[in-house]
Amino acid sequence: MDEIRQSTEKTMVIASGRAHPELAQEIVEELGTQLLPMSAYDFANGEIYVRSSDSVRGKDVFLLQSHPAPLNKWLMEQLLMIDSMKRASAKRITVVSPFYPYSRQDKKGRGREPISARLVADLYKASGADRIMSVDLHTDQIQGFFDGPVDHLFGIPLLADHIRQQVAGEEVTVVSPDTGRVRVAERWADRLGGVPLAFVHKTRDLTQPNRAESKQVVGEIEGRTCVLIDDMIDTGGTIAGAVSILKDAGAKSVIIAATHAILTAPATEKLSNCGAREVVVTNTLPIPAEKRFEQLTVLSIAPILARAIKEVFTDGSVTTLFDGEA
Amino acid sequence: MDEIRQSTEKTMVIASGRAHPELAQEIVEELGTQLLPMSAYDFANGEIYVRSSDSVRGKDVFLLQSHPAPLNKWLMEQLLMIDSMKRASAKRITVVSPFYPYSRQDKKGRGREPISARLVADLYKASGADRIMSVDLHTDQIQGFFDGPVDHLFGIPLLADHIRQQVAGEEVTVVSPDTGRVRVAERWADRLGGVPLAFVHKTRDLTQPNRAESKQVVGEIEGRTCVLIDDMIDTGGTIAGAVSILKDAGAKSVIIAATHAILTAPATEKLSNCGAREVVVTNTLPIPAEKRFEQLTVLSIAPILARAIKEVFTDGSVTTLFDGEA
Amino acid sequence: MDEIRQSTEKTMVIASGRAHPELAQEIVEELGTQLLPMSAYDFANGEIYVRSSDSVRGKDVFLLQSHPAPLNKWLMEQLLMIDSMKRASAKRITVVSPFYPYSRQDKKGRGREPISARLVADLYKASGADRIMSVDLHTDQIQGFFDGPVDHLFGIPLLADHIRQQVAGEEVTVVSPDTGRVRVAERWADRLGGVPLAFVHKTRDLTQPNRAESKQVVGEIEGRTCVLIDDMIDTGGTIAGAVSILKDAGAKSVIIAATHAILTAPATEKLSNCGAREVVVTNTLPIPAEKRFEQLTVLSIAPILARAIKEVFTDGSVTTLFDGEA
Amino acid sequence: MDEIRQSTEKTMVIASGRAHPELAQEIVEELGTQLLPMSAYDFANGEIYVRSSDSVRGKDVFLLQSHPAPLNKWLMEQLLMIDSMKRASAKRITVVSPFYPYSRQDKKGRGREPISARLVADLYKASGADRIMSVDLHTDQIQGFFDGPVDHLFGIPLLADHIRQQVAGEEVTVVSPDTGRVRVAERWADRLGGVPLAFVHKTRDLTQPNRAESKQVVGEIEGRTCVLIDDMIDTGGTIAGAVSILKDAGAKSVIIAATHAILTAPATEKLSNCGAREVVVTNTLPIPAEKRFEQLTVLSIAPILARAIKEVFTDGSVTTLFDGEA
Amino acid sequence: MDEIRQSTEKTMVIASGRAHPELAQEIVEELGTQLLPMSAYDFANGEIYVRSSDSVRGKDVFLLQSHPAPLNKWLMEQLLMIDSMKRASAKRITVVSPFYPYSRQDKKGRGREPISARLVADLYKASGADRIMSVDLHTDQIQGFFDGPVDHLFGIPLLADHIRQQVAGEEVTVVSPDTGRVRVAERWADRLGGVPLAFVHKTRDLTQPNRAESKQVVGEIEGRTCVLIDDMIDTGGTIAGAVSILKDAGAKSVIIAATHAILTAPATEKLSNCGAREVVVTNTLPIPAEKRFEQLTVLSIAPILARAIKEVFTDGSVTTLFDGEA
Amino acid sequence: MDEIRQSTEKTMVIASGRAHPELAQEIVEELGTQLLPMSAYDFANGEIYVRSSDSVRGKDVFLLQSHPAPLNKWLMEQLLMIDSMKRASAKRITVVSPFYPYSRQDKKGRGREPISARLVADLYKASGADRIMSVDLHTDQIQGFFDGPVDHLFGIPLLADHIRQQVAGEEVTVVSPDTGRVRVAERWADRLGGVPLAFVHKTRDLTQPNRAESKQVVGEIEGRTCVLIDDMIDTGGTIAGAVSILKDAGAKSVIIAATHAILTAPATEKLSNCGAREVVVTNTLPIPAEKRFEQLTVLSIAPILARAIKEVFTDGSVTTLFDGEA
Repeated sequence: MDEIRQSTEKTMVIASGRAHPELAQEIVEELGTQLLPMSAYDFANGEIYVRSSDSVRGKDVFLLQSHPAPLNKWLMEQLLMIDSMKRASAKRITVVSPFYPYSRQDKKGRGREPISARLVADLYKASGADRIMSVDLHTDQIQGFFDGPVDHLFGIPLLADHIRQQVAGEEVTVVSPDTGRVRVAERWADRLGGVPLAFVHKTRDLTQPNRAESKQVVGEIEGRTCVLIDDMIDTGGTIAGAVSILKDAGAKSVIIAATHAILTAPATEKLSNCGAREVVVTNTLPIPAEKRFEQLTVLSIAPILARAIKEVFTDGSVTTLFDGEA
Repeated sequence: MDEIRQSTEKTMVIASGRAHPELAQEIVEELGTQLLPMSAYDFANGEIYVRSSDSVRGKDVFLLQSHPAPLNKWLMEQLLMIDSMKRASAKRITVVSPFYPYSRQDKKGRGREPISARLVADLYKASGADRIMSVDLHTDQIQGFFDGPVDHLFGIPLLADHIRQQVAGEEVTVVSPDTGRVRVAERWADRLGGVPLAFVHKTRDLTQPNRAESKQVVGEIEGRTCVLIDDMIDTGGTIAGAVSILKDAGAKSVIIAATHAILTAPATEKLSNCGAREVVVTNTLPIPAEKRFEQLTVLSIAPILARAIKEVFTDGSVTTLFDGEA
Repeated sequence: MDEIRQSTEKTMVIASGRAHPELAQEIVEELGTQLLPMSAYDFANGEIYVRSSDSVRGKDVFLLQSHPAPLNKWLMEQLLMIDSMKRASAKRITVVSPFYPYSRQDKKGRGREPISARLVADLYKASGADRIMSVDLHTDQIQGFFDGPVDHLFGIPLLADHIRQQVAGEEVTVVSPDTGRVRVAERWADRLGGVPLAFVHKTRDLTQPNRAESKQVVGEIEGRTCVLIDDMIDTGGTIAGAVSILKDAGAKSVIIAATHAILTAPATEKLSNCGAREVVVTNTLPIPAEKRFEQLTVLSIAPILARAIKEVFTDGSVTTLFDGEA
Repeated sequence: MDEIRQSTEKTMVIASGRAHPELAQEIVEELGTQLLPMSAYDFANGEIYVRSSDSVRGKDVFLLQSHPAPLNKWLMEQLLMIDSMKRASAKRITVVSPFYPYSRQDKKGRGREPISARLVADLYKASGADRIMSVDLHTDQIQGFFDGPVDHLFGIPLLADHIRQQVAGEEVTVVSPDTGRVRVAERWADRLGGVPLAFVHKTRDLTQPNRAESKQVVGEIEGRTCVLIDDMIDTGGTIAGAVSILKDAGAKSVIIAATHAILTAPATEKLSNCGAREVVVTNTLPIPAEKRFEQLTVLSIAPILARAIKEVFTDGSVTTLFDGEA
Repeated sequence: MDEIRQSTEKTMVIASGRAHPELAQEIVEELGTQLLPMSAYDFANGEIYVRSSDSVRGKDVFLLQSHPAPLNKWLMEQLLMIDSMKRASAKRITVVSPFYPYSRQDKKGRGREPISARLVADLYKASGADRIMSVDLHTDQIQGFFDGPVDHLFGIPLLADHIRQQVAGEEVTVVSPDTGRVRVAERWADRLGGVPLAFVHKTRDLTQPNRAESKQVVGEIEGRTCVLIDDMIDTGGTIAGAVSILKDAGAKSVIIAATHAILTAPATEKLSNCGAREVVVTNTLPIPAEKRFEQLTVLSIAPILARAIKEVFTDGSVTTLFDGEA
Repeated sequence: MDEIRQSTEKTMVIASGRAHPELAQEIVEELGTQLLPMSAYDFANGEIYVRSSDSVRGKDVFLLQSHPAPLNKWLMEQLLMIDSMKRASAKRITVVSPFYPYSRQDKKGRGREPISARLVADLYKASGADRIMSVDLHTDQIQGFFDGPVDHLFGIPLLADHIRQQVAGEEVTVVSPDTGRVRVAERWADRLGGVPLAFVHKTRDLTQPNRAESKQVVGEIEGRTCVLIDDMIDTGGTIAGAVSILKDAGAKSVIIAATHAILTAPATEKLSNCGAREVVVTNTLPIPAEKRFEQLTVLSIAPILARAIKEVFTDGSVTTLFDGEA
């Protein structure tokens, strides 16, 4: 039989939703390519229209979307983009969501709650996503919510390298702002050279009638530089409160470090006035000028995302980017 | 063996998202019951929290949500509610979406577009919906997008009954505002007693260099009362334009009828000034006071939804509510 | 580690069911290849046996089947072929069904009807089809019935190019034979240079006791060449009736155009005697000699299918074949 | 909260395709009920239309279809009925296919064959079937092709009871017509009181150049009454040939027994002339008058199907109908 | 139509695998019923055979299995039981696994690890499980691994009530044996009346060449009664080591509390000699006599499981059993 | 747009579980490659840990596991390996299980039994397997249990070639040890040159009160060399009993041939003492030294597996390895 044969070649395409165009631009520049040209706009009642101007048939599509407020809109835009790519015969669709939406709702804290982070994984799957890439998931277990490969990238090394330089020669303690992040604080403590750990927690004296609640810190703080860590900063209330507790407990200075800078009001005001020496975050979410303040340092996550995308496209190893942990 | 047996009983629960509480209230009043008490609120970055205060284990849940702007938020709230009900062991979950979201994107008009209405069906399914109930779908084929039962209710009889009274004794023509609604206009013409049909359409003289586009009406209009019909009114531009064309073509008066009143600005202004004698709609979407105007008549869809919910719950027949067509 | 590597190459295979071997042959000739050799025969009770004589392991299989009567047999043969290819490790299976079976049953016209066109999509999926290619679907929404890519090809440009030549210099009106095809008629009108539109519709005077039904035409007909369009011609009753109505309404001449020539008896007799000047169709379905008649023109769809298959195989763009619309 | 509660009741509905109305009628008479009224007819090109006239919402539907020639048509009719019932909100759909279609294609005899019996199970599932009921599957493993409950009923006890009476006092040997049915013959031998077994098989002397093939019988035949068993009789060639071999080997007389009487031409002629004393079958397939002949005995399977349906509906035990084996 | 109707009743069935018959017996006694009689045995090569002696058609089946070593065998037995119940037409199958298998492998600690706890959820689903019930999951997120309802029961209240009595009047600190359980320790601290928290963690002085690792405790210990908590005790090494560290840090006495007593050797030896005042566990796993020791207190989980099963069967609320948290 | 393109290459990886390292080693030596380095060990309670040391991203993975006792452990290890490869982005995962687990439980022999062989296929699928490769399935229908390609390899030609040499010049009869293997015996008879067939079966004289059961052979045995065939030898009881029956019936000598040597005690003792001249098996399962005996011949299946893996990897034809039958 006269067969029609063709040698194969694979092509990478980076497409981006409208939530964080600067990050998308940084990534394609790192990769030396350009964004897929897309049409995307809103109808009057909020319905979104998306369409790629170029063919994506047979392409390896990386579909970047960040998820600041209004988060549901950007999530839905991403799902529509996935559907359009699937129907346009993309070969593979990798969802790149640096900040995983609804990651804090990763369990049923009480009966009849949704497990929203699992729902998001299901929605990605139902739309046609083959794989997910994300940064510093709220809990590692979220990887297990998706039925397929999840490339879990780490922002902590980036943040920790920066902080290590800032605190060289000082006596450092890593502090978790609550009991749920102590494990992560331990990873930080390792990264910073085996420094001590501490955590803040609520106590309620249940034997007293009015059940007053107070916060206290457990661990060695006095006279030390505290690195107060978290995965995300939303309104900043908890983290600013922790700074105050640490100061009261005799901390010499406090540096705040977090991967995801949601910074909804009044975060900017609170953080700039809380007495922290520096607040270090990444740009997994857009941080407009009006949210920025003097003590804020923003490190770019783009190089890490670009390298991971390249490894995925070339069938390399994402694990080796992070010393075997990813 | 000593078996543990129990007679069975079934219980209906009506839950509602936050998009259109008035409609939900009207429906439960029609049914002589109350809404399931729910907690629902937004986190600072737009993430939504939902939780039922009462057990829904083993219940037959009808989950009402309307979809005005911001539509994506209300859709996501509904998906989260479905997930929470599924995980809370509801026996059956019927999505009640009077206005089906993204219904206008029901096909690929051009290559690389999503089929958003199908995606919405997939998202409902992925979240755990067993069935869908909706009113006057943009096209009948949308029923086929869901892999399960869809109860498709009709608002046209409600609207037509009202209009029949208004136009008693007049010479009536039913007019479709474009070529895609002529089939639906035909159903209206039947309902109004076999009256004539007309439609408006765009023409482009392709032989001319600048391809000027003009609209014209095909059908018998002169000196007649025109009932200009559509399934939804969004910004009102097309429909107001059609009124003007009909008036120019000699129509005696024009009544506008549509099921879904999206009415995004400047719809209110356009419709109140377009010269239509009356604009008749239903409340499948909320119509706040500031959107209302003198010529607007709002008929309540609640009795139809309540009866359909009752039929579904009692294993009756929804089809018979609409003379065999639903 | 000594890895075993191999450069990759992809190979296209065209297989055909037994329903329309001429079309399959035309397509492979266009592509300069040959059909996959298949065994296919019927057992005495109607069960079908199929088997490829050559290996299809790792191949990109295009599985052509046309669906004339007995349609269910040819559909089942196609499903069996898909199953056999899936189990024989084909890399990708594209169903090529120029006439999509059961496309007219694309909605529930009445309660308790199946949505047969959706069922067909589900059967293709369940058997193992990865993609579908079809021509002029009865409604565009059918694309949304399949959970995967659908390449929707258009026969209208082919038909319209032929007709444009036939009617050069004449005053033309495009006519829809019922209210459901007016939108499609509008596409035709555009293609033919912005000519006027008309449609035929049934009227019932519901105020009369015996509800006599009559048909009438809406639009500008008198003294014009009418291009009466439809997606398919089955028994020819509706379309021949429309010719008569157009003639009565003063049409100068009538040309009939339709993509799918089902032509079940007495279509040939009706069409050859209905007074139409020409009947133009394509060969998406086989048209045996005994069904042909003097006024019939059959245009081959094979070049369009061949080009689309080539684009799909080479990861080109099907959309560009049709100016961005497919 | 004022809950709306209702006691529950379940309702059984028996619906039938058009392939074997007599069997459907017998079954409902056994059960003391009536068939669900259905519309079902063919369009000119073979497309089938089905619709139930009564509501099936919340009903426990048993959907009977027999599968004589044209088998593919009747299978497709059944799939359409399933889809319509699913979309009409039937509570549960049990496919009742007394003769399982394509049961002989239950494995890949050669590379690149389909496994058609598995495909049929997949099609039932994709259409919406919850359960399957069938009689004397070609191989027991077919039960494993369906992802859900399969009630496998046995016709052998019915046939064996009849034959036991016919051969009382005679020396009986049970004979398998080929090597694949010896296990089943063993079950028969048990049923008939521990009688001897034999089988016919093909031999090819591969050492000879022209590889002549001959058939021979292995086992004790001479002077005995042979009960030649099979699950189905199609064209009757193999079974009539076996009678001849048994006679040649000295059999006193031969009775043929099979559950499924496909009887495609020239089966009637062959069987009536082959010298068998009696041919005993059931009516899992319709046997029109012109296929019947003097030696043919048809036993009704309706009582067994009716009892099994009743057990399924009432949550009884089908297993106990067959002494623990079903 | 003469419909066949029947009032409905539901029946609960408790079936148990062979891993922990005592627990199964306790549960059915609590419920006042008996276990479903089952055959279950091993073939010589380890393949397991299971079969229910009674019909389970239409029954609400609760399928209990505990998962001690050899865990894979008991898991496979449970999957086979699920498959058999599904095929035998059980109405609903609830997996009751008090100790969720592979719960410690709930994330990818390093690249290329499986997420085994998710796999277990997938295997339950693939076999036919509708719901899962378990006790004190290693992390709450595991609930999100299953696509359906998970009833997550708590053993902590049972253990805490016992301990509260033992330590009445003493100064208590709750201690987490590592950084990953601090959140859970906080829940304990609340339960015991707002007592202080502490945790043990590893430190590595990375500035030293040989990176010696040492463990230290963070929090208030001296002169206090320490309640050292964990979800499971496997070989007992970590927990016995923590007792020693606490003693060295001046703890007055140490009580160990854990839900799941895996107790693989040399746990019994280590725990009985580690100096703990009491070791309190539940019987989610069987604890044979040879593993027991003087200081061990075993509380029965059976009443909690029995009450939860009853709530699930009667459509009550499991959440209310645990003050809204389950 | 500056696209990033790359030519593609495919890479084969052979990974092995811990059940039969010798076979894995033989296969990679045949292929001239090495095994993927894996960590795999057991936790104290039986939970298994697996992890590949090398990246498998984009690789074509063949995942070999044999299934001797403890079979459930090895099956679970294989499922965990599949999950880890899926999550590590393997391009394709082919399960290579030379002895398919639970293959004897391929049907419901009695009501309420599982169909364990189908369950195994479902578990492979749920874990992420794309394809299965196995040798001499207990019944051919098992191929239909998996929804995807199954490469069914044959050990019979290997065994038969060996035996043909051993029995050259002798009068041979092929004997099935029960009624279920007669079809397979027929394939053997063909392979050995058209020799006669016989089978052993149980008879029960049901007319006698104590229903004594005896075994007898049907077919030509006396003075002949009997090749007693089976697909597997477990405890050896049936097969050793058959040797005795054949000897009693006058067989000159008996050679036993079977693909899968389970050989659970007391198989070695029984077979070495049963009087068989030779017992020929393959190494689809490991056969440790203590199970071997003088008359045992073990042929390696590795060359067949290696060739099949190579064909699958290179998109060649497995069917042609076996003359069109696989």
